[in-house]
Amino acid sequence: MSPIQFVSLGPGEAELITLKGLKALQNADCIFCPETPVRDGHSLSRAADIMLRLDIPTNRIRRFSLPMSKQRTDALNAYDQVYAAALSLHHAGKKVAIVAEGDAGFYSSVHYIYEKLQAAGIPVEQIAGIPAFIAAGARGGLHIASQEERLTVIPGITTAEEIERLIQSQNTVVIMKLSQCTDEVHRCIRLHPEYDYRYFENVGTPQEKYISDGQQLETLRFPYFSLLIIRHNGF
Amino acid sequence: MSPIQFVSLGPGEAELITLKGLKALQNADCIFCPETPVRDGHSLSRAADIMLRLDIPTNRIRRFSLPMSKQRTDALNAYDQVYAAALSLHHAGKKVAIVAEGDAGFYSSVHYIYEKLQAAGIPVEQIAGIPAFIAAGARGGLHIASQEERLTVIPGITTAEEIERLIQSQNTVVIMKLSQCTDEVHRCIRLHPEYDYRYFENVGTPQEKYISDGQQLETLRFPYFSLLIIRHNGF
Repeated sequence: MSPIQFVSLGPGEAELITLKGLKALQNADCIFCPETPVRDGHSLSRAADIMLRLDIPTNRIRRFSLPMSKQRTDALNAYDQVYAAALSLHHAGKKVAIVAEGDAGFYSSVHYIYEKLQAAGIPVEQIAGIPAFIAAGARGGLHIASQEERLTVIPGITTAEEIERLIQSQNTVVIMKLSQCTDEVHRCIRLHPEYDYRYFENVGTPQEKYISDGQQLETLRFPYFSLLIIRHNGF
Repeated sequence: MSPIQFVSLGPGEAELITLKGLKALQNADCIFCPETPVRDGHSLSRAADIMLRLDIPTNRIRRFSLPMSKQRTDALNAYDQVYAAALSLHHAGKKVAIVAEGDAGFYSSVHYIYEKLQAAGIPVEQIAGIPAFIAAGARGGLHIASQEERLTVIPGITTAEEIERLIQSQNTVVIMKLSQCTDEVHRCIRLHPEYDYRYFENVGTPQEKYISDGQQLETLRFPYFSLLIIRHNGF
């Protein structure tokens, strides 16, 4: 029986999916795809947008609502329902895929379903995808890290002093979920205007924003899904 | 005029190239591709192997020798020649691509050519690829980093105590170029057999090696191109 496949879609630009991921989607009988409820009863799904642009038939896509609340239990309940539905299709001999933006094994809450299936002895497969910070680096033409440099990825909680310490010890710093540390990032830019700051939102989509001017960033309010790459200019 | 494209090939499994990268290769008139001299006058090129499996016509591929010596100047000389050849083809109106394994902006020495072209005012484009550690995570079915966890990537030089400090402060640690820190990694495994160690070589190729048993790793000699993902088991 085919394994249940966890297919990484990449960061948003449809053609940044891998050939392997695309083939898995084209062969799947049923594809579970998260959407996020927004105002007025509508919902958004960047994952569904990517698949639309890849000509994946809509009738094979089963969208499920993934609440964005801070209560992780709400998301886990949604995932438990996907788990049960995926399992039953798998037992009926169907080829099942579950998609994730970016890479399905890198800050991807859907991995919860992977682990639950694996614990139940169901065959699972994970197909790698481009993480957002890699796409951002390519967009900015950056050498994210080179030679002896290190990379530290921080999901949202940090201080200006910590960033300073990391940069001074030859780290490139990638900060995600910037809305969680806006004040500290602003403070870091004021303390160290000489660092190289590259800010990204929605890389590779029509909503893309790319700012490399630290002064402009000093007053910017960051949304949750945004990303900053900080490097020492003198590396 | 088309930009000179830096096409990331991904970590070794041909189908882990992105759709965008594949299209760029299919449209290129000339593709510069590194090879490494080995014994008996032969040379190896994993990049050429990937393109062969993707049915890229061999007569459009121009291989260049990239010495693996510790003298960075030897590599830079090779890159200077590629720079000159690429530039002259570009001026002749040809579509030029330069390939890199993994991601062309993540520990990729070929970025030197990108920067030199950019400094000369030549249009360049970087196409993202899957880094080896992301493919390794997918191969092992790992959640490399989740929620508040951090990621630190270390290219070869570290100590057992540093790994310990990082793991204890909720970092996932990825170590590349393991041959440079074999003794310290062995010492870390003896000090902390409770950590989760996942070792990878040549992920996605016929030479793939994947070991998740710390005891087995404790005596293994690591080649230069190898990768270890260390996590706290109790995360």
